[in-house]
Amino acid sequence: MAEREEQIQPVSNAFNRTLNRLKEMHPSDIAEDLEDRDLDEIRKLLREFSDEQVADILTELPQEIQTDLMENMRLDRVSEIIPEMFSDDAADALGHVSPDRLQDIMDTLPEEDVEEITDLLEYPEDSAGGIMRKEVNAVLTSMSLSEAREAIRRDEDQDQDNAIYIYVVDQNERLQGVLKLRDLLFRDLRLKVADVMITDVRSVSVNADQEEIANIFQKYNYLALPVVDDFGKLVGLVTSDDVIDVIQEEATEDMQRMVGLSGEEMVTTPWSRSVKNRLPWLLINLGTAFLAGWVVSLFEDTLVKYAMLAAFLPIVAGMGGNAGAQTLTIVVRSLALGEIENNEWRRVLVKEVITGLVVGIAIGLVVGFVSWLWKGSWVIGAVVCLAMLLNMIAAALAGVMVPIGLRAVKVDPALASSIMVTTVTDVMGFFLFLSLASIALNFLAL
Amino acid sequence: MAEREEQIQPVSNAFNRTLNRLKEMHPSDIAEDLEDRDLDEIRKLLREFSDEQVADILTELPQEIQTDLMENMRLDRVSEIIPEMFSDDAADALGHVSPDRLQDIMDTLPEEDVEEITDLLEYPEDSAGGIMRKEVNAVLTSMSLSEAREAIRRDEDQDQDNAIYIYVVDQNERLQGVLKLRDLLFRDLRLKVADVMITDVRSVSVNADQEEIANIFQKYNYLALPVVDDFGKLVGLVTSDDVIDVIQEEATEDMQRMVGLSGEEMVTTPWSRSVKNRLPWLLINLGTAFLAGWVVSLFEDTLVKYAMLAAFLPIVAGMGGNAGAQTLTIVVRSLALGEIENNEWRRVLVKEVITGLVVGIAIGLVVGFVSWLWKGSWVIGAVVCLAMLLNMIAAALAGVMVPIGLRAVKVDPALASSIMVTTVTDVMGFFLFLSLASIALNFLAL
Repeated sequence: MAEREEQIQPVSNAFNRTLNRLKEMHPSDIAEDLEDRDLDEIRKLLREFSDEQVADILTELPQEIQTDLMENMRLDRVSEIIPEMFSDDAADALGHVSPDRLQDIMDTLPEEDVEEITDLLEYPEDSAGGIMRKEVNAVLTSMSLSEAREAIRRDEDQDQDNAIYIYVVDQNERLQGVLKLRDLLFRDLRLKVADVMITDVRSVSVNADQEEIANIFQKYNYLALPVVDDFGKLVGLVTSDDVIDVIQEEATEDMQRMVGLSGEEMVTTPWSRSVKNRLPWLLINLGTAFLAGWVVSLFEDTLVKYAMLAAFLPIVAGMGGNAGAQTLTIVVRSLALGEIENNEWRRVLVKEVITGLVVGIAIGLVVGFVSWLWKGSWVIGAVVCLAMLLNMIAAALAGVMVPIGLRAVKVDPALASSIMVTTVTDVMGFFLFLSLASIALNFLAL
Repeated sequence: MAEREEQIQPVSNAFNRTLNRLKEMHPSDIAEDLEDRDLDEIRKLLREFSDEQVADILTELPQEIQTDLMENMRLDRVSEIIPEMFSDDAADALGHVSPDRLQDIMDTLPEEDVEEITDLLEYPEDSAGGIMRKEVNAVLTSMSLSEAREAIRRDEDQDQDNAIYIYVVDQNERLQGVLKLRDLLFRDLRLKVADVMITDVRSVSVNADQEEIANIFQKYNYLALPVVDDFGKLVGLVTSDDVIDVIQEEATEDMQRMVGLSGEEMVTTPWSRSVKNRLPWLLINLGTAFLAGWVVSLFEDTLVKYAMLAAFLPIVAGMGGNAGAQTLTIVVRSLALGEIENNEWRRVLVKEVITGLVVGIAIGLVVGFVSWLWKGSWVIGAVVCLAMLLNMIAAALAGVMVPIGLRAVKVDPALASSIMVTTVTDVMGFFLFLSLASIALNFLAL
């Protein structure tokens, strides 16, 4: 008995130490700490926090852990925690829960919460509806400032740091204008809301894409934007902290997708999941690699006679690949930032081809000259120079057309674009160099 | 005379049409429209806007155009426009102006503006000091709420959408806490600021790196953060719209730098500047390409005998390059997001090597089997399989160690990292495959 207690004691001490340390921390930091622990330990620790604290912590945990907790926590606890969350955070937490469990949870929640969360769950995750919260400060056009002030004081949800604007709606909940908190503070309270409000208020549609919204925030420096449905009815609010998350997410996604990653992989993703994510694109890449290898094999006869040509293959192809990656990166990023309008891609294409031509001449001359010195044959030098120049132009064409083409068929312009461009520059590089070399060497009989 | 007037008329009509169209637009949209025009036209159009409007438009123009305008506008106009801008925007506009011109401009400005702008110009562009504004709502701990309310009403700069928080300082201007506008609206105005304020207020150092600040905003969902100097004195404010710009900028920079671009290139950058930006890294890349070519040339004797080996070079090297790019992308992005703490890279390395090993075995077996079928030689199949496996591990090592190594020597982990990783996978791929093939084929005499 004594022995058993001794064994338990240190564990319990460690638990209390961890708990005391966590209790001092910001919910975001607590979430970061919990992230690396197993589910049972997380649950055990969360039991020691209030519903409101758990709501704040939960919101900051990775998606999968939120889902696991929603699936496994006691139902009565879940029903206390969800109402403490912003509706958008609640919808995120419940978005991947199994339908049965979701039903069980919904049955325990107040009707108002159920309605808000159900509404939000119906919007695509990457739309305004998917990132907005339903809680939004709204007063009626017909109110006086003094009535507006009272309405806001009564509304408990308002007591949030991010209550920056007060939106004004008509009796059909259609967005009409915006008030500043400042107006309530300094203007004559007998004035009508309708007379004080700014009527020129920008809003986004509930169906707008999150990337588009991010670009609007960036361009106009907003801190928050109201979201309206097809009838102009105010249905939610997107704030700049939501947008910051969206921007980081989209940038990560683009960077990853370009090289054939899932867009959601993290350094902490277990290797088994990484393998599963990466293999499919690598297998496709293997197909394109065999294509490049097959092009080389077409020139086996030439290579038997002039084995030294093989050394130039990686030079011509590699340089093309890198130049293509440069063009591709510029185009993919500009597309994401909304900098290339519908028909502007022609101008981009012309610019990139000119750049490719000039870079190709410069690099071509250098590489041709060095190759001439290396192999002592001006024919080789000339062939490498010309192949390099042509491959640089191919790289520019592929770097622009691959992402533009993907967008035209409504696919993410980043998706595996790097693999495609490299395929072009490899295949073209090998083909250009080996065919030019075959012709030149056969004619001139080196 | 009549003929001349006819010629002028349409131009002037076009000008007026453009002007009328612009007058209806948001400053950000006006800036986007002006961007593509030449400097004289921009100046001519801006003459038709008020100082305040020009201040708003100028802020949204690209850096170079802002500088050009500051250099070339009439001095008395500049001296009217600058005081209409937030201090951080003014500092940005003046940051690249020639010293003589800057002195001329400063001489015309009110002393207060000169002081604020000079202060800001001294901070590095990518530090908190470089992105913050000096205008910040501050009241004294010793005030009553009613006095605080009066102080804010008096302060003209406050009339901004982004006045979300009111910061509280002591008589030495040291940050002590934060008030919400809401407190002024609903609390008893006789209360002391010191009793109502939240004392647990987070701030950032004026020297903090902008990337670090972006990560803090993302993690804690702030809309604004006060900036303090080494003595805790409140010196400025960073808002989430500044942070959105920083985040986009940093993501663009990382994506571009990985492939040897400047980090600031846009689709609209003229081709001459693009060539100048891209050539240096491409020339360095040419050096590494020759290195790879030289490795191939070492095995010329083998290639003379077995020319068909050349076809496998792009397969082994290309697949390694792609797997390396995947690892690299994950690591560079995680470093930027602050997800890899000082010693965690070891864990990342282990995970990536395991992933590389498993992927390498999978891809190795497929490629080995296909190669066996293709060339009808199981020796070739086995050699390709083994070379692929080893190159995948090299790719994982390079993908982690290149960015981690760059960071260790205080260089941006993204900088040309893609070129370096590809060099490793090319050189290793060629060397591994050709040396294994030489040994195997010589021993077994195919």
